[in-house]
Amino acid sequence: MAYDPADPWNPAADRLVLSEGHAVPIVYAAYADLGGAVGKSREAARPLGVADVDGLRTRESELDGHPNPGEGFPFFDAATGSLGQGLSVAAGLALAARLDGSPRRIYAIIGDGESREGQVWEAADFIVDHKLNAVCAIFNCNGQGQAGLVSKQQSAERITAKLEAFGWKTATIDGHDPAAIEHALSQAGRSERPLAIVARTVKGWGSPELQEGNWHGKPVSANQLEAVCEHLRENVANLTRESGGAGAVDLRPPAPPKLKLEPRPSPAEAAWPSFEEAMAAGGFADVVKKGKLATRKAYGAALKVAGDLLPQVVCLDADVSNSTFSEIFRDAHPERFFECKIAEQNMVSAAVGLSAAGRIPFANSFAKFIARAYDQVEMASISRANVKLVGSHAGVTLAADGPSQMALPDVAYFRSFASVRGDDRSTPLCRVYLPADAVAAYHCTRLMVERDGLCYMRTLRPELPLLYAAAARFEPGGVQTLANGDDLAIVASGYMVHEARRAMELLASQRIRATLIDAYTLPIDPERLLEAIPSARPGVARRVFVVEDNYGGGVGAEVAEICAGANKAGEAPICVRTLHVQCIPKSTLTAEDALDYAGVAAPQIADHVRALLA
Amino acid sequence: MAYDPADPWNPAADRLVLSEGHAVPIVYAAYADLGGAVGKSREAARPLGVADVDGLRTRESELDGHPNPGEGFPFFDAATGSLGQGLSVAAGLALAARLDGSPRRIYAIIGDGESREGQVWEAADFIVDHKLNAVCAIFNCNGQGQAGLVSKQQSAERITAKLEAFGWKTATIDGHDPAAIEHALSQAGRSERPLAIVARTVKGWGSPELQEGNWHGKPVSANQLEAVCEHLRENVANLTRESGGAGAVDLRPPAPPKLKLEPRPSPAEAAWPSFEEAMAAGGFADVVKKGKLATRKAYGAALKVAGDLLPQVVCLDADVSNSTFSEIFRDAHPERFFECKIAEQNMVSAAVGLSAAGRIPFANSFAKFIARAYDQVEMASISRANVKLVGSHAGVTLAADGPSQMALPDVAYFRSFASVRGDDRSTPLCRVYLPADAVAAYHCTRLMVERDGLCYMRTLRPELPLLYAAAARFEPGGVQTLANGDDLAIVASGYMVHEARRAMELLASQRIRATLIDAYTLPIDPERLLEAIPSARPGVARRVFVVEDNYGGGVGAEVAEICAGANKAGEAPICVRTLHVQCIPKSTLTAEDALDYAGVAAPQIADHVRALLA
Repeated sequence: MAYDPADPWNPAADRLVLSEGHAVPIVYAAYADLGGAVGKSREAARPLGVADVDGLRTRESELDGHPNPGEGFPFFDAATGSLGQGLSVAAGLALAARLDGSPRRIYAIIGDGESREGQVWEAADFIVDHKLNAVCAIFNCNGQGQAGLVSKQQSAERITAKLEAFGWKTATIDGHDPAAIEHALSQAGRSERPLAIVARTVKGWGSPELQEGNWHGKPVSANQLEAVCEHLRENVANLTRESGGAGAVDLRPPAPPKLKLEPRPSPAEAAWPSFEEAMAAGGFADVVKKGKLATRKAYGAALKVAGDLLPQVVCLDADVSNSTFSEIFRDAHPERFFECKIAEQNMVSAAVGLSAAGRIPFANSFAKFIARAYDQVEMASISRANVKLVGSHAGVTLAADGPSQMALPDVAYFRSFASVRGDDRSTPLCRVYLPADAVAAYHCTRLMVERDGLCYMRTLRPELPLLYAAAARFEPGGVQTLANGDDLAIVASGYMVHEARRAMELLASQRIRATLIDAYTLPIDPERLLEAIPSARPGVARRVFVVEDNYGGGVGAEVAEICAGANKAGEAPICVRTLHVQCIPKSTLTAEDALDYAGVAAPQIADHVRALLA
Repeated sequence: MAYDPADPWNPAADRLVLSEGHAVPIVYAAYADLGGAVGKSREAARPLGVADVDGLRTRESELDGHPNPGEGFPFFDAATGSLGQGLSVAAGLALAARLDGSPRRIYAIIGDGESREGQVWEAADFIVDHKLNAVCAIFNCNGQGQAGLVSKQQSAERITAKLEAFGWKTATIDGHDPAAIEHALSQAGRSERPLAIVARTVKGWGSPELQEGNWHGKPVSANQLEAVCEHLRENVANLTRESGGAGAVDLRPPAPPKLKLEPRPSPAEAAWPSFEEAMAAGGFADVVKKGKLATRKAYGAALKVAGDLLPQVVCLDADVSNSTFSEIFRDAHPERFFECKIAEQNMVSAAVGLSAAGRIPFANSFAKFIARAYDQVEMASISRANVKLVGSHAGVTLAADGPSQMALPDVAYFRSFASVRGDDRSTPLCRVYLPADAVAAYHCTRLMVERDGLCYMRTLRPELPLLYAAAARFEPGGVQTLANGDDLAIVASGYMVHEARRAMELLASQRIRATLIDAYTLPIDPERLLEAIPSARPGVARRVFVVEDNYGGGVGAEVAEICAGANKAGEAPICVRTLHVQCIPKSTLTAEDALDYAGVAAPQIADHVRALLA
């Protein structure tokens, strides 16, 4: 690797993704030998010392149990340790390097047992599709897993055969022979095909007393330690030129080239066009005249504008760009659009790599299929990645395709991340956007771009009428009050805002008047929500009804937690009732029928509201 | 396929898993021609008629938009439509067939674009590992995806090469040549290796006007229809013996053999041993004497007992059986233990196949890595599968390994499923178990076995003191009251029950006395929770504090929703405050330090309680 231990931020330096994250102590030890820079920012950096290694896994240490750049180890680009994700991160780094004109190579070390994870093979396909020959994959084949031996399906021979079948060039070597390692590495990037090095290794190598037995996760005992170290010192001296040895290999890293990236415009200072201009640029010039547009289409147009304004915005999709409408971005910025095909796990981890290299990646699929990558989403959060996830066809209003295509627990899942604070200890780890119309979708896309951190947006299949004036104001934590009524507040988001309006028409005939609150983002600022709820009348509780087109734990739980926490003795209690999808949905021909089947259609909302007021 | 259209429940009949679920209309049409049985149970079955096909995707129809046995189409074993999962389901069916002594073959049809999903290759490894040669995989290579052409990485040639490298026998054929199809199928099960048929196909085949262009998800126009049908009729007559044709192939299914399975004992009637006997049988004879045991160990012993009592209980693990303690089951019942290696997606979908064949599968990994298969979990729920998921090392008390190994949004995710009702419209779609000690873990395992439906249990790494007498009573929806105090209720589960007890010791010095509620399962029966909360004193709100060692949206949201819904005018309001992990965790050396870093340790709980009472 060409890199400068003092400057892990150099965009031309080579990178290592340690996909088998549990092997990280050896990297910490080597980095300490080199005095590599650690710290949460360039300004706070200091060289790692050998004594620091004793702090491994302690609360104060940058040396977390698994690779974790978020705790101040900038040698790494992404948190690993949940296996099988590193090669995808390497692919994302390679995409960014190509855009940047950087000559960097990206090395990824993958365990043999780890290569059982299907995502490794998604990444193998993706790297060939996009000719990312800057990636060099190294498979560490020691044959030992946690609970037993690695399957023969993950033997060095089988892994080599698989890689060849996937279109890779392979080199199978003795992973303890420095000359063989050096020669194999020298072949990286020299072929039309990406290079994978399949290294046969032995756990406990170099020490005869350790080479037998399973050492997975077990330290050497104190009384064996000195003998083992002595064996290793001899081997190092014999095999390398380190410490005056006679071996073939020099272990000092060569210096990387210099590369200065173009300064990028600040997302906060971008001059966004008006809603109408943006929609027209995306092919929806008649949106205001027609008075309706699907939120997924408005998002597609907004994303294209983001790409116009900010060269760091990039886009990934999983073979559904004609459904998510990321195709509008693709047509405008083809060099920044990456087709991932039907492999969502690789898509999300590649987005983490792009983010680590300074890009703002938007990863798109049906909201249901984003769930395929929820573990990768969590690893993105631990990596502090600036990844934007956009799921289309959310909720039950997709209707005819049935439940296998509907996102249902997604709001609860992402709300869980939204409940936690980011490193600044004030803003949330994740923000969730649930736009109810095209105007909201446009502004929520802008909010996602402006925010540095994980975001999730839900878009909808149906065409929906516009609710907002083009210049309506949307803010992090905000709510919109769409109607005022004294009897209760109805809180909804996305499609359910429209459904709640229909319910309010039904209730109006009984003179029930509700305040309608559009909760277009999570987390909700508690003060803004509480202000928007009608005040109490004598002898009556303040009443709130929340309805959503997903399984429970989303907006309803958010509102219930805020309101239940605000109750005080001597004040009128706040009573919150929540309604969400009641059963596993099935195919229906219309969105309205899907909502009725799920128990959340307008007449059902009206019934629940009447029961709440009774 | 050998099967009887009138009896899709025959355990010896061959099965088809249509992994590329969007192709289901052709199966419905063929099944209608054969008058195949539809209905949600054998008793409610009726033959499908040709006229029923017009009901495709309507609310009343068994013919859902994608394969969905839950709506009454028992020809299928699992819901598909989220791509890449069917081959794993087929593997699970094959495991069950072997245990049953059934000669059935299991055919799985997989799209070319679909085979980009890594899970397909996890299944390919698993099928070879377990020699599941009853599975015959058919790859349908038409080259068309949704947003564009299928990648060359998924060409028939490349798929064939990959399958060979994975250790499969392959046959590449013209997918429109009945004789070639019949010959290829005749080879299934005749080799030491599983067979994959790679079929080159043309979308719109048989009709010259349709063979060009992309027909993904698009119906034929009305004015083309008659000409297209005429072409197809000619082709069918030429290629088959159907309708008096001269072709080589007979399309009528051969009759399956008869097979009568041993009747299985009812899980509800199993005679479970006492806690102490069960623990002793699992190797923890000294648990009561020592007074402590990790919940993961108690679960492992309980699972072994379940296997002793019920031959239908089977177990899957993902290379961590020495951490989850499913190894106790493995050692006792090796023929019912299936090592899945590091491939959680395949593990969960294989469990769905086992469940469809009448088994009760327990799938185990670290709780964090169960998240790798959350989309498969959702498909299991749509399949109405009786799958039990058990995640160990949950929450932050795993400590030293760091956040990549900690389950954090898991309670919110599974609570979302627990909020929805199952097909009986009374019990929840999923139950979540959060045992705080070994006794609770034992009884929760029993509850999981007794319940027919999706379950999730969280177990913990640390050794924990026993809280309960061996005969303590645990019930669906129940809570346990561990202490009584008038000032407030503290609700906790799992490790946090112990932490709450420590907080109560700190509070006792200030004469603050709390009722301690162990919420060991979700959903909580609202009445039981409300009864357990101390009643109001004059002029004071009823106060509840909830603490959990995961991200938000779990027990706190459950309690807040119940209490916020119970508030009434004229009664003392219930004020609920929730506390959960506040930030992304990092490695620490001890569980206590991890809790403190996350903001949920005993002194912090005590501070929050004092603030609530102030």
